[in-house]
Amino acid sequence: MESRVTLENISSNQVFGGWHRQYLHDATTLNCRMRFAIYLPPQASEQQRVPVLYWLSGLTCSDENFMQKAGAQRLAAQLGMALVAPDTSPRGADVADDADYDLGQGAGFYLNASQAPWSAHYRMYDYVTQELPALIASQFPVSEVRAIAGHSMGGHGALICALTRPQDYVSVSAFSPICQPSDVPWGQKAFAAYLGSDQALWQQWDASVLMRHSQQHLPLRVDIGLADSFLHSQLRPEALEQAAAASGYPLQLYRHAGYDHSYYFIASLIDEQLRFHASHMGLLPPDTI
Amino acid sequence: MESRVTLENISSNQVFGGWHRQYLHDATTLNCRMRFAIYLPPQASEQQRVPVLYWLSGLTCSDENFMQKAGAQRLAAQLGMALVAPDTSPRGADVADDADYDLGQGAGFYLNASQAPWSAHYRMYDYVTQELPALIASQFPVSEVRAIAGHSMGGHGALICALTRPQDYVSVSAFSPICQPSDVPWGQKAFAAYLGSDQALWQQWDASVLMRHSQQHLPLRVDIGLADSFLHSQLRPEALEQAAAASGYPLQLYRHAGYDHSYYFIASLIDEQLRFHASHMGLLPPDTI
Repeated sequence: MESRVTLENISSNQVFGGWHRQYLHDATTLNCRMRFAIYLPPQASEQQRVPVLYWLSGLTCSDENFMQKAGAQRLAAQLGMALVAPDTSPRGADVADDADYDLGQGAGFYLNASQAPWSAHYRMYDYVTQELPALIASQFPVSEVRAIAGHSMGGHGALICALTRPQDYVSVSAFSPICQPSDVPWGQKAFAAYLGSDQALWQQWDASVLMRHSQQHLPLRVDIGLADSFLHSQLRPEALEQAAAASGYPLQLYRHAGYDHSYYFIASLIDEQLRFHASHMGLLPPDTI
Repeated sequence: MESRVTLENISSNQVFGGWHRQYLHDATTLNCRMRFAIYLPPQASEQQRVPVLYWLSGLTCSDENFMQKAGAQRLAAQLGMALVAPDTSPRGADVADDADYDLGQGAGFYLNASQAPWSAHYRMYDYVTQELPALIASQFPVSEVRAIAGHSMGGHGALICALTRPQDYVSVSAFSPICQPSDVPWGQKAFAAYLGSDQALWQQWDASVLMRHSQQHLPLRVDIGLADSFLHSQLRPEALEQAAAASGYPLQLYRHAGYDHSYYFIASLIDEQLRFHASHMGLLPPDTI
């Protein structure tokens, strides 16, 4: 038996002097074949390993949305920051799915499912916090300095990764995150399916609950658009603010008039979030960029 | 009968402080309903009408590819430049089509077709040079200063618009254009269908032929990636260079090692092309950006 990781490179594009590449690999935590994308800035080499920002996308997305639409590579190339975008769920014909966009494939919620049929593959938390970072570190010229960010479902995913494994990251940020999934329709539907009816278990995967009990704090930035049609029904940033106040978490939450839930909002603010992470990664201070 | 233009607004997103919006309208030149997108920078108002860059996309694209993937709004917002992206062909169930990606809907080639069944709708040249600019000027806070750019099929489209109507534009640019369609498979297939077998007619729509006979010259910038898989089979920039040399056309053609035909290339160089147009539009000189 061959135990080495085998990466299958399926695309390669030069971008701002660095390289965007997509790979397939057999993910052992998910028990299926997975695609991910990495952007390596021009500085990256075995002699100069670069910090990595992990990006977790939202419902219906794959590794491609962020890489194609956020425009993050321009500043990442200047800063010398790698970007890694996993998919949003396990994938494949034998992976459980649902006809709705907000459950099943494309909607893994970055947690470990305990309920059949989901538990056979849906272990995105283990994948994005352990298997994928180990793979990236072993195969690419990246340093051990990591940060995490995401959008919507993936914004919540970034929060729970950072809140449960603060030792693994230097900073965390989110665009338009679902802030308290236990209390909104998207989260309730997913948690009921993936975790079952015991709401005590839900709390272990709810960012606002986790934050309320957090002791180790990371720099945290959140950007939310006030024209986001999901703001009150699904996102509810006030829940995160209340949790941060209760535990003394240093939350920087910015509300932006006129912006919605789309990648046009992310593109407009991504430089701010990259500079935020860069300052905690030990890259050039923002005012020299 | 109501003679006023009716625009149906179907999307609206704040981007870098300005607005991206998509509209539907009944296009009289094309005899069908058409979608286009416009980006208005934050400066645009009735008191400060802004110059417009028209962007013509390539095969299979719509108005969305450039707006979602090029990352052009960031610098356009700083410069005070509007962006307009039409679709790449007439559209609709009653519009002639072809099963291949390089003919029919999504592949209008920005010319006026003379052959049935295409001639009933395929008049993209009249649409992008006359109907759409008149509509934009009447409905949005834009000035009379216009430039034109595009990618691949749309790069060629920008070239033929600028070469045949130099009075309408202050500058022209292209990414990875088809430079001499009469001599390459994409162009030969489209021209044979849309224009028929008379190759004398083809020459009226071929940028390298038009440039060879051009007398009025516009500032022209072309960017081409040397890792573009279509470089030798479909694009052939040397044909454009030879035509420019023959007529004294001031072509600035840049070849970029490692870059391919994708929007990752466009995103990497779009700022350079925007600054090029801005300098000819009378916007702030590039070194103040």
